[in-house]
Order: sequence, then structure tokens, then C-alpha cells
Amino acid sequence: MTSPEFHNKVIYENSRSFGTVFKSKCKETFFPDDPFHELKNEPCARRTRKVIKYFIPIFEWLPNYNFGLFKYDFLAGITTATLAIPQGISYANLAKLPPIIGLYSSFVPPLIYAAFGSSKNVAVGTVAACSLLIAETIGEKVSPTEDLKLYLSLVYTATFFSGLLQTVMGVLRLGILIDFLSHSTILGFMGGTALLICLQQLKGMLGLSHFTNKTGVVPVLHAVFSHRDEWKWECFVIGAIFLVVLQITRYMKNKKPKLFWVSAIAPMVVVVTGCLFAYFTRAEKRGVAINILFKGINDPSIQLLNFDPKYISVPLKTGFITALVALAEGIAIGRSFAIAKNEQIDGNKEMIAFGLMNIVGSFTSCYLTTGPFSKTAVNYNAGCKTAMSNIVMSVCMLLVLLFFAPLFSHTPLVALSAIIMSAMLGLIEYEKAYHLFKTDKFDFLICISAFLVVSFVGMQSGLMVSVGLALIRALLYIARPASCKLGKIPDTKLYRDVEQYPGATGIPGILILKLGSPIYFANCSYLSERIVRWIRDEQEVTESSGNVIEYVLLDLGGVTAMDITGVETFVEVRRNLETKGIKMILINPRRDVMEKLIVTKFIDKIGKENVFLSTEDAIDACNFSLNSSTEVKAEDL
Amino acid sequence: MTSPEFHNKVIYENSRSFGTVFKSKCKETFFPDDPFHELKNEPCARRTRKVIKYFIPIFEWLPNYNFGLFKYDFLAGITTATLAIPQGISYANLAKLPPIIGLYSSFVPPLIYAAFGSSKNVAVGTVAACSLLIAETIGEKVSPTEDLKLYLSLVYTATFFSGLLQTVMGVLRLGILIDFLSHSTILGFMGGTALLICLQQLKGMLGLSHFTNKTGVVPVLHAVFSHRDEWKWECFVIGAIFLVVLQITRYMKNKKPKLFWVSAIAPMVVVVTGCLFAYFTRAEKRGVAINILFKGINDPSIQLLNFDPKYISVPLKTGFITALVALAEGIAIGRSFAIAKNEQIDGNKEMIAFGLMNIVGSFTSCYLTTGPFSKTAVNYNAGCKTAMSNIVMSVCMLLVLLFFAPLFSHTPLVALSAIIMSAMLGLIEYEKAYHLFKTDKFDFLICISAFLVVSFVGMQSGLMVSVGLALIRALLYIARPASCKLGKIPDTKLYRDVEQYPGATGIPGILILKLGSPIYFANCSYLSERIVRWIRDEQEVTESSGNVIEYVLLDLGGVTAMDITGVETFVEVRRNLETKGIKMILINPRRDVMEKLIVTKFIDKIGKENVFLSTEDAIDACNFSLNSSTEVKAEDL
Repeated sequence: MTSPEFHNKVIYENSRSFGTVFKSKCKETFFPDDPFHELKNEPCARRTRKVIKYFIPIFEWLPNYNFGLFKYDFLAGITTATLAIPQGISYANLAKLPPIIGLYSSFVPPLIYAAFGSSKNVAVGTVAACSLLIAETIGEKVSPTEDLKLYLSLVYTATFFSGLLQTVMGVLRLGILIDFLSHSTILGFMGGTALLICLQQLKGMLGLSHFTNKTGVVPVLHAVFSHRDEWKWECFVIGAIFLVVLQITRYMKNKKPKLFWVSAIAPMVVVVTGCLFAYFTRAEKRGVAINILFKGINDPSIQLLNFDPKYISVPLKTGFITALVALAEGIAIGRSFAIAKNEQIDGNKEMIAFGLMNIVGSFTSCYLTTGPFSKTAVNYNAGCKTAMSNIVMSVCMLLVLLFFAPLFSHTPLVALSAIIMSAMLGLIEYEKAYHLFKTDKFDFLICISAFLVVSFVGMQSGLMVSVGLALIRALLYIARPASCKLGKIPDTKLYRDVEQYPGATGIPGILILKLGSPIYFANCSYLSERIVRWIRDEQEVTESSGNVIEYVLLDLGGVTAMDITGVETFVEVRRNLETKGIKMILINPRRDVMEKLIVTKFIDKIGKENVFLSTEDAIDACNFSLNSSTEVKAEDL
Repeated sequence: MTSPEFHNKVIYENSRSFGTVFKSKCKETFFPDDPFHELKNEPCARRTRKVIKYFIPIFEWLPNYNFGLFKYDFLAGITTATLAIPQGISYANLAKLPPIIGLYSSFVPPLIYAAFGSSKNVAVGTVAACSLLIAETIGEKVSPTEDLKLYLSLVYTATFFSGLLQTVMGVLRLGILIDFLSHSTILGFMGGTALLICLQQLKGMLGLSHFTNKTGVVPVLHAVFSHRDEWKWECFVIGAIFLVVLQITRYMKNKKPKLFWVSAIAPMVVVVTGCLFAYFTRAEKRGVAINILFKGINDPSIQLLNFDPKYISVPLKTGFITALVALAEGIAIGRSFAIAKNEQIDGNKEMIAFGLMNIVGSFTSCYLTTGPFSKTAVNYNAGCKTAMSNIVMSVCMLLVLLFFAPLFSHTPLVALSAIIMSAMLGLIEYEKAYHLFKTDKFDFLICISAFLVVSFVGMQSGLMVSVGLALIRALLYIARPASCKLGKIPDTKLYRDVEQYPGATGIPGILILKLGSPIYFANCSYLSERIVRWIRDEQEVTESSGNVIEYVLLDLGGVTAMDITGVETFVEVRRNLETKGIKMILINPRRDVMEKLIVTKFIDKIGKENVFLSTEDAIDACNFSLNSSTEVKAEDL
């Protein structure tokens, strides 16, 4: 390999210091969106103003706010409020809380979110999955029917912890944690939860008075069928009618998106109809359960926060799980609507906004809120322009709490059950699961195991199993990065995977391998075994044609990272190849890899003459050297 | 983009079925070494014979074994045995077991390993780290001084579980799990353990009779200094002399590897000297502790295995942890010596061999054994050729057990302490840690946290912390794969990272990005944010020169895997770019990625005319289209 013209292009002198590399890695890890990009080269006062605007987005949009925008937000806010009332009452019921807490939770948190939230589309409210999770985890320890005060205090404490965790995660820019909840995990988890919640509603739909406290499919179905004597056909008929009406409006919305308002106000219509019906038929006397609601706004609940070591583990655990689930839902939904409008939202800022609203919520008799899908979709479809729609919704709720709350006292449970059921049926997205099955079997496996474990074992186990599977999948990728053999595509200077491009042909005496990324401790022994296998397979083919492998070219163009074990493996592979009389050549190491190879002195060991910028250069150099050695041999004869 | 000649080379019709892909993935994951490669095209009888030979390697080498090889193995076996006796007694002491168990453990397991092991260099025996782990975890539950019988039965049960787990892992080909114990983890863990063990030896070195049961640095030092009145200077002087002698022989070996035998027999010399010294000075009467050893070979211990639910969790946990630690040490050492001799060893086969020898060991009064570093190095240096050296060692141990065991009864504890200390000092490899610090700060962090947590908190926590950190590192890589902007290197047709090759220049109106691998759920939102940032940064630069970006070229050549969320992100990115009037173009998707893009119909969406085989083709096509549109505009004027 004596002709230097082939490899004079590789640059070695461009290594960065540890500080530079560390800073750049931290930036990529925690600030991938480069939030302070606009602050560069600004005077101090303006910079401060920009930072404030950055952290409290209301200062950004409020000064430019005008009546033209308000018209849209007003309409959106009112529409969302009509949905917020029945949803608030229903989900509070699901969380085994007094229904008024559900209304409280749509009053304070939206105000906080309007100030700190970065999304223009998210409408704040309670969510079904977290409500059930709260009932499941806190209900395990304290029964809401036996000691409501303690139960309430633990719910507020859990909300407080959720908010704290969300804020801290946002400040520490740990949005990266949310990234590990994959779409398939969420799909399966949501589907399973929706199934559980639907089954729970059989209590209301059938008018049962005895039911189970468990949430699994088996105990709930058992409870339903073992109390067949309690089934009330009046209840069931009313519930079924409500459900059919709600499903039809939903179907209409899907067919004609302009009719979204029909499905948005349908729950309100169901509630009002149910109220009137119950009032005039005095249904409560015939066993149709109703709710009691009083006038008045949120009481302070800060004095109820309970940090008693005897119970602390329950709200801590509940807070941790619900915080993550709520964030995953809120951020995913914010992101998808932002993309539809071609805007950017900042996950970390969203976390802070969600966190603050939950902390304040826990002080003012609210339980866990986030950006639920149904409300946000209504808000978006109703044409919201800014977070002002949340303020409008909050004012509507204030009016309801001050004047109209008792009117909803007569809402029969069956109406709420029908509303919840209808919302949940939309969350069992079997078409998406089928799409997963067709396109990615492993993702489907993750999704279906989340679904099954949630349905039959429990929500927490389901979440853990599916996050675990997703992590294993990611780790498996790291443990077995794909490598391939390259060949030359005829009539070009391109070298590509010979299995992908069957026309590509090898070069006698030379084996070109493209390695996968990263080269890490977890795949090093695999990698060295795989290289040995590539060589063995190649030798079997070439032996018949009388050629022997003289060069192994490792194309590192796709390798973005390498650790110290990786470098050690290269040393071993090289020694191993040398004993077989094969030379190892590196092609196009990328920046991080090159820096590691230089700092560990591997480049000195292998020699700069064995590192090339492109496969073509390397092949030319190898052929040059192969030919000259053949010539020497020929001359010797 | 109307000129079809630029993109007629990409092949789309080469997709594999799910079955093929699944088979190939499983092969790469569980059979990367392709063990049955040689069985192809063989008749049935021969194939059976080969399979037997594959699983029981002794059938492979024994038929060709001859006296020439035996000479070497005999010498190596005897040398290893002289080390096995003092090590066996010392490590049994460390595990708080009767010293004879240490000798038993060098008799039965080597015989099993000789039959099933695939390495020619490994010499089987007990190891210090696992001995201390056993004492720590089982000692927590049952005190060996108070109820030795129960303690022993739990140790055997833990050994049985270790063996079972190792065998099962080998059969299921889960060698992949060992891959996740990185070199830096093992380095830090071993260093911390060695420090703990050294400190434990202060009891013997100072002749203390009161000591702590804890293993942490703080309680041990506290115990040593709070019993200053018990320090025996005679003990300390003798111990120090022994230690210095041992360290000198070790130093000699390192300087002149041919003198390895001096350091190999030095522990035996120390033991014999110690015995004679203790015998003639009647040292035991002056408080120098000694051990009691009886004649006779291993008793059966299968009846002692204890599956009582009251205790079962202890041996289960101990078995699990020690199995992994023992495998990591045994396989790593086997591999490194195999590489030195340019042989291949099979990690999964090794696991089965280790597992079987521990199962049989637990039936015959042996505790956990593996391939320890010290013994294997001596075996290798003594010139062993096959696993026969293990058989020779085992026969030597048999003779010792039958005839000479009582002679070692007088071994003073201080001699054993000096032997252990000397062995452990060699395991605190601060040069390697310094090398890590210089070459890879994160690996150093993993190493040092393992070291510190092991020293100050405990061995189990240390192992967990460092494995956790290593996993986080791997996951962080997945979460933030590096992407870079490509530019054209002058006078070539090569496109490379503009930061790595500052001479590389961009093409007006075109932004070329090389994406890192994989494109997974865990990095999708990062990826789309990063692409937006690349575009923004590029626009800021080009705006001043009056250019606008019309094309974004994504070079996928380095991307080896993509999941369904990745494809969805591409859909979003494309929609986002389109609203900005930018066209998205893909370059050189690799096989797995192409298959995913086809099955999700993304290729149909983006159009085959926007996928190219090389950056050059794509640039030519873009320029062609840019020029023709400029011409059209010019004509319009």
C-alpha cells in the first residue's frame, strides 16, 4: 500500500476537546430544539424579556391578541365547556370522587395552562385512564366509601406529586423519558384501559347496586353476571338509546368533520335529557342512581395534603405513574395537533405547564388534569386560535359552579355511563392495531401485550410490560446492529448491499463489509464473531474460484458512535485477521468514531495509509497493491 | 423531477417475507456464530455424531489426544493444582465455609468442565468475588457461626440455582445477556470487590478475634480501629513478609513471563512455610487462628438442598447474581485467552458447561465455581493444550483429599490472608481506569461508580448501578442518534460531514442530511425537531446569499433499522416540509428500511422518483430540475 495519492483526503487534525464534545452531546440530549437560539447577539434587557416570554408564553401572544382571534376562541371555549361538564362529572365518578371535583378540575387548571402552555390547541381537563388508575391504586389502600376524607386527601396529594414530578422533569429537560413510551405502547395501553372502563360502565348501564372494586375483565364480568337479579331493563333501554345517539353523532363527525359540533354537544344533550327525564319521572325513587351537586367554587385543599409516612407510598406511586401517563397523552396530542397546523410545541415547556397546573390544582380541590384527546380535538375543530379558549372554558365553568351546578344533580348515572362508554369505544382502535400487525410484528406484539395485560392483570402491570418490551426491542437493536457485504453495482462507482442489489458484484481478493451503528460494549463480541463468519462464508465461495481474501474493508460511514470496548474489539479483529494473512482497512470513519480511534491510538496502530475516505479509493489502492505484488511474483519467476 | 435516468437503479422488488426476516433476525440474535454451519449437506449418521461432538467437546478432542499433548497438560495441571489448594482454602474462608469445601470444589467441577467446556485454557475453581457475594447475601439471613448446617444447605441450594440458570441461559442461547456487562462495569466492580476483600483480610493480618459481619469500607475500617487492643504485631509481621514475597513473585512474572511458575507456586510455598512455622511454634496457642481439615473425598450433598419457602428467596437471589457474575468472569477470561491463541470459543456452550458443573457441584459438597482469572492464566502460561489439564488438576486434588488434607490443618489464617490480599491487589487496575478516563469519560464514570458503590454501599448495589448506567448509555444512544450535514469535498464526487471536513461545500438550494441509525420510537420526536433545526440554521446562512432551500436530501445509507413510528415521523416531516415549499428526497435506504417504507406505502406516497441510490444522482436530478425551473422562469420574463 505504497501509493499515497489514494488516501490523502482523510482529515485527522480536526479533533474536538472533551469540553466541546460534552457540551454538544448535552445540547443534543437536553436541548435538541435549541430553545434559546433567538437570544444570540441580543442586548441584555431584550434578552430578559425574551426569556420571560419564552417561559410564560402568554406574554408572547397576549399583547398581539385582538377581537378577531377572540371570536374564534370564544366559540371554541363554549363548545369545549359543554363537553367539559358531562366529562368532568363522569370521570370524577370513575375516579370514585364526588362529581363536583370533576367540575372544579375544569375551572382552575385551564387558567394556569393558558399562562404557561405552549400549545394553542390543547384544552385542559381530566382523563379517563388516569381517573381509573387513581381509583385502582389509591382505592387499594383506602376505600372511598368508608373514609372519603382520607381518600380525597390522598388523591390531592397524588395530584401534587404528579405536578411536582412533571415540573421537575420539565425543568431538568427530561422530555427524553416520554420518548420511551412508544405509539404502540400507548395504543395498547389506551385500548386496554378503554375496555376496562367500558366494562365498569355496565354497573350504571344495568343499574346494579352491588359491584366489584376490582377493575380486571374477569372479576367485573363475574360481578355483572352474578348479580343478574339486579339488572334493570329500564336502565338498560335508556342507556342503550343514549349510547346509540352518541355513537351516531360520532359517526357523523367522522363522515363530515364540519358536523363536529353535533358530537361535541351531544353529551350535554344526553345529560340534559337524562336530567329532565329523571326529574319528571322521579327516577331516583325507582333506583336510578343520581349525583348530588352544590353551588360554589373550589374550596382550598392545601390543608388536606397528606404527607403521613403511613400512607405516603400510595400517593407517591400513584403520582409517579399518573404523571407519566398524563404527560404521554397530553404531549402526544399537543404534538399531533401542532403538526397538523404546522407549528412546533416544546415538550419540556408543556411538562412545566402541566406540572404547575397540577400543583395549583392540588391546592384548590382539583385532581389530575392533562390535555385529553377528546376535548383537544373539539377545541381544535371548533377553530381555537390561542390558549384563550381555555380561559373562556374556565369562565363558563365558573358560571356553572356559581349558578347552575345543582341543576345537574339529577343527572342519572346511566347517562354518564353512556357518555363514558361512547368516548371509550372510540379509543379501542383495532384498525390501527391491524395496521401494526401488517407493518411491524414486533410493534404489534408490544401493543397487544399492553392491551392483554391491562385487561386481565392490571393497568400498572400492562404499562410496565409494554415499556419493558419496547426497551428490550431498543436494546436488541443495540446488541445486534445489522452489517452487510457490499458489492459494486455494474456501470457505476457505487458499492451497495449485495443482498439488496443482487446485481452487485464482489471484487476478487477483497471483502467489503458495511458495519451497523453503534459499535458498543453490548455488541462487540457479536461483531467480531460476525466478521469471522463473513470471512468464512466468503472464503467458501472464493476458494472454488482459486482466490483468497487479502483485504477486509470495513465501511464505517454508517457508524455514528463507538465506545472503548468497540476500539478494543477492532484491535482484536485486526490481530485475528493478521494471523490469517488478511489486511484490515477502514473506510470513512465519521467524526465521533475518528476521535475515539485517534485518542485510543488505534489510527497509529493500523497506520494512516490503511484509512480511506471512500470505498472506491480503498479498492483502487488494494488493487494497485495486489497487482504490483502479482507483478513482483511474475518478475521473480 | 422529470428525468428518469437519475433514479432507475433503486430496486424495490426485493422484499422478503415476514418468515424470512424473522428467521434471519432470530439467527443473528441467538446464533450469530452459526454453530451448525458444518452440518449442511451431511448424511444423517455423521450429522448425529457431529451434533454430539458439538455439545460434548471431549468427544471431539479425546480421540486425537496423544502423549505429546499430555506432557504439556500434565505439567499445567500440576502447576494449577498447587495454586488450587491455597486458593480453595482461602476463598472458602472468604465465603465463611469450612475450608475443606474449597478443596472439594476443585475436585468434581473440573471433571465436568473437561467434558463439556469448549475452552482449552480455562482452569476451573472458586472465585473471590462470588465467595464474598455468597457470604454477604446468605450471611444476611443465616449466620454461619450460629447455624452452619442451614448456612451450608443454603449455599448448596444457591449453587444449584446458579447452575440451573446458567444451563438454561446456555440452552436458550441467552449469551446476549452477558454482552450487557461491559468491560468498564466489570473493571469497576472487580476493583471495588478487591478493595473490600483486601480490607476483610485485615482481620487475619492483624490477628483480630472480633470483627464485623458487614463488608463495606466504613464498617470494616471502624471494626479494625475500634479493636486496636487486639492487634497482634507477630501476626502482622509474618503477614507482611508473606505479602511482600508474593508481590515480588508477581512482579517477577510481569517482568519475565517465563517465570510465571514462581508466582504460581508461591502461594503453596507460603502455605507450607506457614504450616511448618505454626506447627513448630505452636502458634495456635498464641492466638494465630488455624483451620481444621479432614481426609476423605466429597460427601454427597443432594439431600441438603433446601427448597423451604421460608428461605427460598435467599438462595434464588444469590444464585441469580452469582451466576451472572461468575459467567461474566469465566466467559470474558475464556474469550480473551482464546483470542490470544486465535481460537473461537462459544459463549453459549461455555454457559452450559459452567451450569452443569455447578449443578453436579451442588450435589457433591461444592460451592460456586467458574473459570477464575488467576488459575486460567497459570494454566495458559504453563502451556496447557486441552481441557485435560483440568482432569490432571482434579486427580491431584483427589490425592490431596485422600492423603494430605490434614497436613494443611495448620495453615495459619494470616498466610491465607496474605495470599488473598496479594491476589486482590492485582485486580485493582488503576492504570486501566486511568486509560478509560483519558479515552472515554462516560465509561470511566460507569467504572468509578461501580467501584465506589461496591466499596461504600454494597456489591449488589454496585453491580446494579453500573449495569443501569451502561444500559442508560445504550438507551441514550438510541434516543439521540447523531445526524450531520453533508457537503461536497472539492475535486471529488464524495459528500461528507461538513464539520468533520471543513473544506466540504454545500450546494445552493439543497440541504443534505445524513441520518443516524436507528430511526425508532425513542428518537422520532428528536429527529423531526433536529431536521427542523438543520433547516432553520441552513436558511439563516443562505438567506444572506439570497438562496432558499428547495430540497432536503436525507441520506439513509447509515440507517439499518426503522420502526413504524419512524415511518410516521417521515410522513409528518414530509408534510411539514411541503408546507414550507421544500421537497423531501431519500437517498440509499438500506434493505430493512426499504422493506418498511414499502410495506407502509411511504414509497408510494413520496413517489419512486424521489428515491435515489446515491447522493450524486440526487444532486444531479435536483440541479436538473432547479435549472429547468429557472429556465422556465427566465423564458417567462
